[in-house]
Amino acid sequence: MKDAERQVKRITAKSDDFSKWYVEIVQKAELADYTPMKGMMVIRPHGYAVWENIQKGLDLRIKAAGHVNAYFPLFIPESFLKKEAEHVQGFSPEVAWVTVGGKEELEERLAVRPTSEAIIGHMYAKWIKSWRDLPVLINQWANIVRWEKVTRPFLRTTEFLWQEGHTCHETAEEGEAETLAILELYREFCETELAIPVLTGRKSLSEKFAGASMTYALEALMSDGKALQMGTSHNLGQHFSKAFDIKFEDRNQTLQYVWQTSWGMTTRTIGALIMVHGDDSGLRFPPRIAPVQVMVVPISIGDWKETVLPAAAAAVEGLRQAGLRAAIDAREESTPGWKFSEYEMRGVPLRIEIGPRDVKAGQAVLVRRDTKAKETVPLASLGARVPALLDEIQAGLLAQARAFLEANIREADDYARFKDILENQRGFVRAPWCGDEACEARIKTETMATIRVIPLDDRQALTDKPCMACGAKGQALAYFARSY
Amino acid sequence: MKDAERQVKRITAKSDDFSKWYVEIVQKAELADYTPMKGMMVIRPHGYAVWENIQKGLDLRIKAAGHVNAYFPLFIPESFLKKEAEHVQGFSPEVAWVTVGGKEELEERLAVRPTSEAIIGHMYAKWIKSWRDLPVLINQWANIVRWEKVTRPFLRTTEFLWQEGHTCHETAEEGEAETLAILELYREFCETELAIPVLTGRKSLSEKFAGASMTYALEALMSDGKALQMGTSHNLGQHFSKAFDIKFEDRNQTLQYVWQTSWGMTTRTIGALIMVHGDDSGLRFPPRIAPVQVMVVPISIGDWKETVLPAAAAAVEGLRQAGLRAAIDAREESTPGWKFSEYEMRGVPLRIEIGPRDVKAGQAVLVRRDTKAKETVPLASLGARVPALLDEIQAGLLAQARAFLEANIREADDYARFKDILENQRGFVRAPWCGDEACEARIKTETMATIRVIPLDDRQALTDKPCMACGAKGQALAYFARSY
Repeated sequence: MKDAERQVKRITAKSDDFSKWYVEIVQKAELADYTPMKGMMVIRPHGYAVWENIQKGLDLRIKAAGHVNAYFPLFIPESFLKKEAEHVQGFSPEVAWVTVGGKEELEERLAVRPTSEAIIGHMYAKWIKSWRDLPVLINQWANIVRWEKVTRPFLRTTEFLWQEGHTCHETAEEGEAETLAILELYREFCETELAIPVLTGRKSLSEKFAGASMTYALEALMSDGKALQMGTSHNLGQHFSKAFDIKFEDRNQTLQYVWQTSWGMTTRTIGALIMVHGDDSGLRFPPRIAPVQVMVVPISIGDWKETVLPAAAAAVEGLRQAGLRAAIDAREESTPGWKFSEYEMRGVPLRIEIGPRDVKAGQAVLVRRDTKAKETVPLASLGARVPALLDEIQAGLLAQARAFLEANIREADDYARFKDILENQRGFVRAPWCGDEACEARIKTETMATIRVIPLDDRQALTDKPCMACGAKGQALAYFARSY
Repeated sequence: MKDAERQVKRITAKSDDFSKWYVEIVQKAELADYTPMKGMMVIRPHGYAVWENIQKGLDLRIKAAGHVNAYFPLFIPESFLKKEAEHVQGFSPEVAWVTVGGKEELEERLAVRPTSEAIIGHMYAKWIKSWRDLPVLINQWANIVRWEKVTRPFLRTTEFLWQEGHTCHETAEEGEAETLAILELYREFCETELAIPVLTGRKSLSEKFAGASMTYALEALMSDGKALQMGTSHNLGQHFSKAFDIKFEDRNQTLQYVWQTSWGMTTRTIGALIMVHGDDSGLRFPPRIAPVQVMVVPISIGDWKETVLPAAAAAVEGLRQAGLRAAIDAREESTPGWKFSEYEMRGVPLRIEIGPRDVKAGQAVLVRRDTKAKETVPLASLGARVPALLDEIQAGLLAQARAFLEANIREADDYARFKDILENQRGFVRAPWCGDEACEARIKTETMATIRVIPLDDRQALTDKPCMACGAKGQALAYFARSY
């Protein structure tokens, strides 16, 4: 703890200036820090612990769905990126290039991976020979580099961490089924672990992954009313298998190209956790993902070291044995008040205060971070009450985020109302759209809103209304929003 | 499974050609594969699962010792690398340089991290102000790039994975204590998890890390008699804190430079697992690190699907519930014999065979990979016997490796004997050395042997004998060996 920090850290209120609040909370809660290199950040221990919990929850689900992890090279020869025409066009403006190795100028430039389809495609062509080799269900945890012009910690950075799944299948149907199964896996993960409800659906063709047949995405609503893409699942069709010659002998002894998918979720989700759940006092981490779930603060008065401290230490030990991530802050150089505000700012879901009177009464005071509600609980009941309370907090954060999302999905059948919503209320606007890329581009230019997703369920997507922007025949109801 | 692989894979016998055996086993057991980029490999799922187990065991220990994880940028500005003179001299021949970002030539080249002291030092200077901020105990799991001329899968690759710890302390003594505590942590990890016994000690100054005051290392003996460095722990002294201006106000309000350490263990340890434990039939993974600990092979004869298969499936389920990594191979296109040889080659520690007669007798046949010894066990006792047997296998592999190590440490007081041992027996040679770098360099040129470690314990290191190579006054007994 730095001397200067012994005072309560002041942060801009979220309600005053959302952007400023965001960058302040990222730094003051020590989630991340800037580096001298534009757009590259350090993920500090408090932020990285969140990422480790995200990894744990996601890796478990990815493996349970039959996938295995592997590791492919960081560098991709330029000629490989160029094999899929749309892919290279989409990514080459963002690539960092290695041109010198040791003392030598390289004959061919190497891309620092902006995504790994190209190098993985090359290896798959070598490994896959027969239908018996399929499906191939491989995932990779890795760092990714994209040379971004405008950056913001976690949300858009030159380097970020992610997982990228890359699968191969015998048939188009199996590829599509995998793409959608992963979309559902991501949705369940976001809601269960991150307490973030999402809209799912397909992207318009202009927003799809460079090289995919179809991109599906999950979109969450930040509390400033802007959307954030939480993850994507791409049906690659045979685009890459044709470019990289990934063929297999099918059950009829005929050579076929495999059908592929790829999908990813990144450290950007940490930005979503901040922007969905945070409030004027700072972060509010959902218990399932919080680095520390319970912080015990002994009230340091009188003979607290003899009375309070042992009781507090015993409480922490009991909670740890119950499998919770519990910690104690018994430092003397900081006051209990400072600690309360510090751990509120850092988003610890539950605080337990134990003072001399509490010890005498055999009790502790539990303070929820989400609602700031207090309750007094017998010390002997902590092992039962705390896990239940953490579940309530997890559910409460999800319910609050869901209510906010639902209250901020609005309908617009005409362009005037559409623009008015975006200007004055933000959130998602569900509106009929003609399916034309030029119309979509005009909407983006004029309103800064893009199509976030088009629902998969025809009952939600079909419309007989004309396009709200151009009046042409409506093709689908789409969710529009301004976004990060 | 590829059609061509349905035949038993033939591998070169280890005893015939160790090098050829190594590269064949890496590929045929699908641990890793070559890529079109020189020296860069893919770690395939079977190899990556080993790395995941190594990570789990090591991460647990690193955290239990009080460290936290973080993530620092992949790129390091050239000017940062240059701040520590010895550091840049040591690493610059091996650096891959990013010179173009997007469409723009960069003003300053960026090194793809060959190690992270320089960027971490810069951040520490920003974060550390007071003795209250110390110690800083941070670890990072990351990929590393070093432009190597001669490469071999896992052992020396252009890109590899590792963990790197970077700590800061108030005093020189605390820095030294941390360096040695990590050396011990690594030693215990190697022996307990990898079943690989090691020699520990300090490096000679010519072999130390570029920028360290002192490097400590762990050395294991491969079964061809060559040594492999398993990990290093560096006492950095104040070299980097002075170069990067990492200062703190001490308890007397005086500004001081912090004392630092750094330490790492890499995917190279997978190479050690192969070379220490492997035999003519292939890999032998220690159970604690094996991706699959138990492979159940139902014997597919007669009505096996109705009788054997349910019993085999029940056995696997029982073992999984007991917390073991158990799998079943019930594929019909391969014979039991093919499977036996395949999983022996892949190093699965224990095979369970269940045939029609076994089912009738309510038993299974357990075959150890390490000794190939068989035993028949009642199906009802699998849950008790299998974990015990896996412990025996783990202990057996360690004991075998330790016996081999001990049998291959030889003493040499004169240069003729020293050369004779290295030429005809290999292994470690413990010999008196004068401490002179020129003498050390001559020994290396003439015998291809280097000083692997000098024991920390004076009772083992002190000598009154003259240097075995030059006859000057002996400074220490050192362990020499040829190495990877």
